[in-house]
Amino acid sequence: MSKQELGVLEVTGAVIGQDAACCPGLATAPLDDERAAELAKVFKALGDPVRLRLLSMIASREGGEVCVCEMTPAFDLSQPTISHHLKLLRQAGLIDCERRGTWVYYWALPGVLDRLAAFLTTARTAEGTQA
Amino acid sequence: MSKQELGVLEVTGAVIGQDAACCPGLATAPLDDERAAELAKVFKALGDPVRLRLLSMIASREGGEVCVCEMTPAFDLSQPTISHHLKLLRQAGLIDCERRGTWVYYWALPGVLDRLAAFLTTARTAEGTQA
Repeated sequence: MSKQELGVLEVTGAVIGQDAACCPGLATAPLDDERAAELAKVFKALGDPVRLRLLSMIASREGGEVCVCEMTPAFDLSQPTISHHLKLLRQAGLIDCERRGTWVYYWALPGVLDRLAAFLTTARTAEGTQA
Repeated sequence: MSKQELGVLEVTGAVIGQDAACCPGLATAPLDDERAAELAKVFKALGDPVRLRLLSMIASREGGEVCVCEMTPAFDLSQPTISHHLKLLRQAGLIDCERRGTWVYYWALPGVLDRLAAFLTTARTAEGTQA
């Protein structure tokens, strides 16, 4: 991956993260078109079992990094398929990566995950009201 | 909608909610196949701008209920399309509804949203470590 590509991904992640942090939660006010489109992209990235498992494998790793060489054996899928899913997670700003020698290493961007979590948390339940 | 159909939806919501509550967060341990599939369904339901806007309109409503008759005018979409999106949100356990006379009224199920939020919250960021 080029430094330029990494830069673009970092910007994407930052924009999504910042947006989720700056704005009201799902249950606070109706979403506008633009923000709904941005958030839907991230949720769509999470809306696949393989991507959720990959993200969870990366985010739960002690030390914070997982080599792509460890991921392929854990799935009954080809390397290109795994790489495609990882690319979608990166484009959503949920993970980032770096090539070192033969392998690419991935790590989670917990800031984006936590901002998504804050967006989903409903004030209603926090106040103890039952739906 | 029949009472039987409502019952099925309630069970679906309860299962997803319970599952998200009982199990480790995304960053705690790698997800297993079954749980990844269940959670992916909910995130997929959130992975569409129209559904996010509908859910946000419902979840942010003072009083907790929105008539379907109020939702259609807010979108440049047909009533059947809106109904389809609402059905997917119901099937994911995110909202529920009841017909009263001519109209169907929708409300959010904040428990499922909060459990999803808890699932996404990373221990790493809570501990103050920066990605």
